[in-house]
Amino acid sequence: MLRLYDYLPSGNGYKVRLVLTQLAVPFERLELDILKGQTRTLEFLAKNPNGRIPLLECENGQFLAESDAILFYLAEGTPLLPAERFERAQVLQWMFFEQYSHEPNIATVRFWMHSAMTPERQAQVPQKRQLGYAALAVMERHLATRTFFVGERYSIADIALYAYTHVAGEGGFDLGSYSAINAWCERVRAQPRHIAITQAS
Amino acid sequence: MLRLYDYLPSGNGYKVRLVLTQLAVPFERLELDILKGQTRTLEFLAKNPNGRIPLLECENGQFLAESDAILFYLAEGTPLLPAERFERAQVLQWMFFEQYSHEPNIATVRFWMHSAMTPERQAQVPQKRQLGYAALAVMERHLATRTFFVGERYSIADIALYAYTHVAGEGGFDLGSYSAINAWCERVRAQPRHIAITQAS
Repeated sequence: MLRLYDYLPSGNGYKVRLVLTQLAVPFERLELDILKGQTRTLEFLAKNPNGRIPLLECENGQFLAESDAILFYLAEGTPLLPAERFERAQVLQWMFFEQYSHEPNIATVRFWMHSAMTPERQAQVPQKRQLGYAALAVMERHLATRTFFVGERYSIADIALYAYTHVAGEGGFDLGSYSAINAWCERVRAQPRHIAITQAS
Repeated sequence: MLRLYDYLPSGNGYKVRLVLTQLAVPFERLELDILKGQTRTLEFLAKNPNGRIPLLECENGQFLAESDAILFYLAEGTPLLPAERFERAQVLQWMFFEQYSHEPNIATVRFWMHSAMTPERQAQVPQKRQLGYAALAVMERHLATRTFFVGERYSIADIALYAYTHVAGEGGFDLGSYSAINAWCERVRAQPRHIAITQAS
C-alpha cells in the first residue's frame, strides 16, 4: 500500500490526499509535525534529503517528493491528467506557476500566521502580499473565460492551485473581488469525492 | 517553426535553448530585455499574462510558459525524458525542487548582482544564501553516488538544475567544496551539442 508522509494543515499534503481520495487509491497516512522538526530528523532525511512533506513511499519501496510531481505520478492514465501532449504541458505550466509564483507568497504567509509571525517574517509580508495578489490576478484573468485551468476539465492543475487559493484568507488575502476564482472554487468543491483540507481522507 | 521568447542572460531561457539545440529542433529566438520591461508590455502580457520569459509559441499558435513545463513538452518521446512512469515522476520531482528550493535563491541573487543590488534586496541575501547552500547540499548528497539525477542517464532534470548551478558563482556562491556537483557539471558539459549559457543556439 502507498504510504503518505503528511502534515494535516499543509496544502501541499492536502493536494496528495485529495487526489488519492478522488482516485479511490488506498493509502496509509503518517502525520509528521513540521513545527516540531519531525521532517528534519536523520530518519526522515534519509527518506527525503530535502526534509519536507508530502513524501510518497511507493510500493517499490522508493520515495517521491514534491507535491506536484506526486500528483503527476498518481494521475497519469486517469481522467485527472489529460492524455494529449500539449494539454499535459499546460497542466505542468500551471503547476510550476503554483510552486513559483503562488505558493511561496500565499501559502507562506498563511503558514506564518498559523505558526509564528516574527518581526523578520513580518518585514517580508508586504512583498509577498504584492506577489500573491499578482498571482491571483493571473488566475482570475485565466478563469474569466474558462471553467477549469486546462482543457475545460477538472485536472491536477485545478487541485494544485485550489489547495492554497481556497484558504488564502487564512493568510490575510481578501478574495472578495475575485469572482471567477470564487466560482471556480465552487466547481472544484462540487467534484465527486471532494474532501476538505482538514480531512485525512 | 517554434518561436522562443527569450533573454540571453536568463538560465531559465538557457534551459530551453539548450534542449532545442540538443534535440536539433529548429526555432526562431526573439530577445526581450526584461530590465527594460519588455515582458510587461500589453502586447507580451497578451501572450503570457504572468509576464515572464521563456515563452514558447508553438506551431499550433498556442503559448506555453514556465521553463520546466516547456522542457517536459519538448522532451516527451526523446532520450531526454525517461519513458518509465516512476522515472518521469522523479524527473519532475527534481524540476519542482529546482523551481522551489534552488532558483528563487541561487538564480535570484545572481540576477540582483547582474542588475541592481538595492538595500532592500541586500537585506534578503543572507536568507537566500542559506537556502541556496541547503539546495546545493541536497544536490551534492544525491550526486555523490550517481552520474546523473535520474536513472543514471542525462535528462531534462540535469538540464534544469545545471542552468543556474554552473553560474552560481556569479551570485557569490562558492562551489569549491562541492566535488560531486563539479564532476556532474563536467559530465553535463561533455554531452553532444552542448551550448554555453551565453549562446543563442
